[in-house]
Amino acid sequence: MVENETIDVFHRGRFYLVQPSRQGYRAGIDAMILASCVPNRFKGRLADLGSGTGAAGFAVVSRCPMVKQITLVENSSFMLSFAKKTLTHPYNAAFRKKMSILEADVTLSGRARNEAGLINNSFDFVIMNPPFNSQADTPTSDNEKARAHVMYEGLFDSWLRTAAAIVNSKGSVGLISRPSFIAEILVALKGRFGGLRVVPIYPRRSQAAIRIIIIAKKASCSALQIMPPLVLHEEKSNTFTLQADGINSGYSSLWDTIKS
Amino acid sequence: MVENETIDVFHRGRFYLVQPSRQGYRAGIDAMILASCVPNRFKGRLADLGSGTGAAGFAVVSRCPMVKQITLVENSSFMLSFAKKTLTHPYNAAFRKKMSILEADVTLSGRARNEAGLINNSFDFVIMNPPFNSQADTPTSDNEKARAHVMYEGLFDSWLRTAAAIVNSKGSVGLISRPSFIAEILVALKGRFGGLRVVPIYPRRSQAAIRIIIIAKKASCSALQIMPPLVLHEEKSNTFTLQADGINSGYSSLWDTIKS
Repeated sequence: MVENETIDVFHRGRFYLVQPSRQGYRAGIDAMILASCVPNRFKGRLADLGSGTGAAGFAVVSRCPMVKQITLVENSSFMLSFAKKTLTHPYNAAFRKKMSILEADVTLSGRARNEAGLINNSFDFVIMNPPFNSQADTPTSDNEKARAHVMYEGLFDSWLRTAAAIVNSKGSVGLISRPSFIAEILVALKGRFGGLRVVPIYPRRSQAAIRIIIIAKKASCSALQIMPPLVLHEEKSNTFTLQADGINSGYSSLWDTIKS
Repeated sequence: MVENETIDVFHRGRFYLVQPSRQGYRAGIDAMILASCVPNRFKGRLADLGSGTGAAGFAVVSRCPMVKQITLVENSSFMLSFAKKTLTHPYNAAFRKKMSILEADVTLSGRARNEAGLINNSFDFVIMNPPFNSQADTPTSDNEKARAHVMYEGLFDSWLRTAAAIVNSKGSVGLISRPSFIAEILVALKGRFGGLRVVPIYPRRSQAAIRIIIIAKKASCSALQIMPPLVLHEEKSNTFTLQADGINSGYSSLWDTIKS
């Protein structure tokens, strides 16, 4: 064990993640839920945009045996240094040849994006957890609110512009975010992806949602659907529901679990 | 009983609705859910836009003893003829002095809207179930989809423009619609109402949502929340859940029932 890093067990020991112990974002249930967007039988190439240390990408390769290739895309060389340690860790040897790392800025566009390695039409699925400031949805003034709104419109627009460019014509995108950003996300998806399926994620059955998953297809004209909810915890304890445990342990996709 | 009309019992006999038996929209659970947006202790003036025969407005007056005045606003004189019969029916005598009817086009704007009787800042709460074509969210071509999209953008924009004009600065709006229209509704609410609370309504726990309720406040800057779901039926039968029965029977507001 190196100082300032931890090696954390995911999917009941089927993969391990090397993470910074203090600085930077530490992966948890959000990454596991995001990964669960991908069907069990997914056979293609997947990009994990803003991958951090790679938790969601590893969760996909750990659950989906037929996946061809997973590319972790991240702009922070600090976070990628942990992704590299995770990739070369002997416990993860089984997945190594299916995983690659790309240091690139997700918000690039046009030629610069292609030159950075985010090649048009080169993926079948993109997953993303666009970074948000935890204070952004509790602004303290109208001015702050307006600024945050504009900033997040720009964030989702640039991330989904990249997603739409790099997935092929039959490709899909899956993202996790906060319910408070749903308007900005729907605007950014418009004209780029269709057939939206929104899954509200509740901490408990009686509490407001803390996250949403949205999955969309590039070629689809189907109407938006709000799917059955995912409830994380039993009502009066911190125990995971069966649904959430299946996802957190990497035994089931989101689609296996939102049907009761 | 007159030919071509029915007298239907709502709220377990606390009010009755005279409805066309064949033509026109017949009120049911949608109107009861929409009415349930209004808090039990609501004390103000309420407009039911596009009221039809008045089911939602009557459901509010039946449950909320302190409500001051309810105005049914409807453009169809055919539907209003039933609202008038409902209003004068002896079974509904207790509510008569709190109810009024306004024949007006909800989509009017500016001076024409005021002249039609939809006076600026004159209500504390507006409820609405904007009319949709049942085929509009299953279009058969991209062209049809684009046309439907533009049509519904315009519909929600004009209805919410009127709602924002006629409620006072502390007023609220509650609407019921289909999940597939959520993007259009959020766009139309933007800049007019804040503090959105979205309630997904599921036929059963394992099925996609069939309706959404959105409640918003004119003066609020709070972030959008996705509230706990309302589930209408038990998983393996057509029996109402306790939640849905409380709403359909007029014993509880939506806020009483979405908390488990």
